[in-house]
Amino acid sequence: MQAAKLHKHVVVIDRGPMLGGVSTNTGTIPSKTLREAILYLTGLGQREIYGQAFRVKADLTFDDLRARMAQVIETERNVVRDQLLRNHVTVLEGTASFVGTHELRVASEDGERRVAAERFILAPGSSPTRPDDVDFNERTILDSDGILHLEEIPDTMVVVGAGVIGVEYASMFTALGCKVTLIDARSDVLPFCDKEIVESLLFYLRDRRLTLRVGEKVVAVDEHPAGTVTRLESGKQIAADVVLYSAGRRGAVDALGLDALPLAPTAHGLLEVGETYRTAVDHVWAVGDVVGFPSLAASSAEQGRIAALDAFGHPSDTLVDNLLPFGIYAIPEISFVGRNEAELTEAGVPYEVGVSRYRELARGQIMGDTHGMLKLMVHADDRTLLGVHAFGPGATELVHIGQTAMALNGKVDYLVDAVFNYPTLAEAYKVAALDAANRLAALEEALAD
Amino acid sequence: MQAAKLHKHVVVIDRGPMLGGVSTNTGTIPSKTLREAILYLTGLGQREIYGQAFRVKADLTFDDLRARMAQVIETERNVVRDQLLRNHVTVLEGTASFVGTHELRVASEDGERRVAAERFILAPGSSPTRPDDVDFNERTILDSDGILHLEEIPDTMVVVGAGVIGVEYASMFTALGCKVTLIDARSDVLPFCDKEIVESLLFYLRDRRLTLRVGEKVVAVDEHPAGTVTRLESGKQIAADVVLYSAGRRGAVDALGLDALPLAPTAHGLLEVGETYRTAVDHVWAVGDVVGFPSLAASSAEQGRIAALDAFGHPSDTLVDNLLPFGIYAIPEISFVGRNEAELTEAGVPYEVGVSRYRELARGQIMGDTHGMLKLMVHADDRTLLGVHAFGPGATELVHIGQTAMALNGKVDYLVDAVFNYPTLAEAYKVAALDAANRLAALEEALAD
Repeated sequence: MQAAKLHKHVVVIDRGPMLGGVSTNTGTIPSKTLREAILYLTGLGQREIYGQAFRVKADLTFDDLRARMAQVIETERNVVRDQLLRNHVTVLEGTASFVGTHELRVASEDGERRVAAERFILAPGSSPTRPDDVDFNERTILDSDGILHLEEIPDTMVVVGAGVIGVEYASMFTALGCKVTLIDARSDVLPFCDKEIVESLLFYLRDRRLTLRVGEKVVAVDEHPAGTVTRLESGKQIAADVVLYSAGRRGAVDALGLDALPLAPTAHGLLEVGETYRTAVDHVWAVGDVVGFPSLAASSAEQGRIAALDAFGHPSDTLVDNLLPFGIYAIPEISFVGRNEAELTEAGVPYEVGVSRYRELARGQIMGDTHGMLKLMVHADDRTLLGVHAFGPGATELVHIGQTAMALNGKVDYLVDAVFNYPTLAEAYKVAALDAANRLAALEEALAD
Repeated sequence: MQAAKLHKHVVVIDRGPMLGGVSTNTGTIPSKTLREAILYLTGLGQREIYGQAFRVKADLTFDDLRARMAQVIETERNVVRDQLLRNHVTVLEGTASFVGTHELRVASEDGERRVAAERFILAPGSSPTRPDDVDFNERTILDSDGILHLEEIPDTMVVVGAGVIGVEYASMFTALGCKVTLIDARSDVLPFCDKEIVESLLFYLRDRRLTLRVGEKVVAVDEHPAGTVTRLESGKQIAADVVLYSAGRRGAVDALGLDALPLAPTAHGLLEVGETYRTAVDHVWAVGDVVGFPSLAASSAEQGRIAALDAFGHPSDTLVDNLLPFGIYAIPEISFVGRNEAELTEAGVPYEVGVSRYRELARGQIMGDTHGMLKLMVHADDRTLLGVHAFGPGATELVHIGQTAMALNGKVDYLVDAVFNYPTLAEAYKVAALDAANRLAALEEALAD
């Protein structure tokens, strides 16, 4: 789109019916649609108000949920297609692979064609890593693509891998009333998040009957007539109707014919890039999951825009890493921007914390939310914002007020003085900022004595 | 609270069980709680997804809704009381009136006492204006206080007054399936809002069977055995089960004994104040509804904070009027900050518009929202943000990202480059900013030729 806006001739080549990529078709869009439908149809968010037994649709099936996903995926594909066509971008369906430094072969059911171009941007996405010794049967042993094709909501589930995807699916299935065991070989869940918030999340997951097994290695996943048994190195065995294996993703580079450039991916199928997402090959850029961290849809889109600008010699700001927001669509939701307490302590930066809980806000009361919170990290000396951590409904939206303040060098005092609509969750910023300012004032007073 | 944080002795005096004021007890909190419950229990927001006949609770009664309101009001009162007590503020129940320049008489059921102080902040709130010739019977002819005590959801309703309160209640009752006629003597509804957005709102209200009568004066509201008949100057007569009379509010100054100060209110019961909310009497400040526009809860709270700081000689920023956000909890919701197209055109400021529609956003698709939009006003020369106008679910939250950018002098280019969580409504800022930037670039190109 950015290249087309620069009046360049652009061709987008994509396999089969996957326009919109992993995000639209098997990743973000279906999983977030599923999450929204689960939250609404189980009435989970409303049980504080209408009682623990409240459900909107008591006989919820996975087909109800899938119908909703299919609808949103189809619309999103059409939105992407419309936007491309409106901007005179040619869309080709087929599998593209380099046959020369400036030429691709595009193979589809209709045959084969060649496409030549001066510049290339690679955005092939990624696919779930599948260990050789796990026998994915697409019925009871599944990866995060396969989980979308479940036939019914299982009573019990093992999720292997407590990364973002694993935690998100564990959240959804516990919300559906499924008993989930979440296993990870690492000892910390979501180690890049604020520790207090992760612990709160685990509290709520356990409250929905999650069993957490961290520091535990899976040695085998076996299929049985009645379901599955997952064996851990520690000797534990866990029976479950379904196993979701969610242990990382690798770049989908295998079909790209990178040898012809030549360009060599890493062992994880990733491509190395510079600041403007240019690869080692001068006329080739790479963006999205295939360049690795952070592999988030919004960052990837911005990477694509930067690459397109750079490809045609236009200046572009590069992504400011520390202002990249992170959104984890667990239940409750987590989002943050900037640094957390552990990072600031490690770096020896003096900070004060300001906290606001949703239940102290009128909006939180109206929503019936009892667990949400917003946590601001404020520099103890210059009063700048060092980090914003949100937990609870709307966290992924709420974080952007703080992100904007941080990006534009706003201090905690801006948030103390700002007037927010009432009743909104945005007010949490004012309450948290006042909390931090009062702590700083108390410290100042104490030091002055 | 601000005075207590400055270690001053503070007494809050409030009538009866009204801690939290009009906002908590009869205004914002009950009406927004009612709105949230209506949205959820009617399934209105979900009908795009689950079909037009979808309802969560088919036999919804006004008692269901009232139970929810009572619960939130009670909690909010307790939150206010707790915060006051935790900060060592004394709370007295009773009706306060000045008996001297520095002394109040506080009358309650338990008797009478005197309270003396060096400084006073008046925040008496307001009450609905009741024309003498309308016979409020608290059953079928009601003001916006009385509406909360409705016995059942009426089939038909007349709302007199298309201000914020009238539009909000008309939104709620149309959502409940009630046929509403909205009447105002003025020719424009919400004239301070973006015209395109108001027209969209009216479209959706009419789609829920609202009849709008603007430029029409009400001459009589009569009670009949079967309901009410409202007569207009134009000769029209409108039968309805219930009439909600919502024609402005006046400051609740009558019991304050202002003569003793002396301090004279205006004909509308308002008090005139300076920049720091000090009245004509040196040791008396006034804040909230009693000082008139904007009479919004969040602004009023900030006015109180500024008054308390000023009362004790602490410097305080005064409210920056053009960054005050406006939130109108219509269905759909409206919020804005800064100037609109009409104001900019009137002022001769060259601007470009950037628009994003929720339905083009993944988040909009997931929510099943088809009507939401975000509209940015961008200065055509210096690319600063001049106004942000949001329409649709979450508008009152969403507007604060733009408010922060405006307050900290962010330009449209900041929003073009920013990365937002995906999928969120916040992305609307990037899409709208790209739209504006593309229009500006097209203009630049055209002028360069």
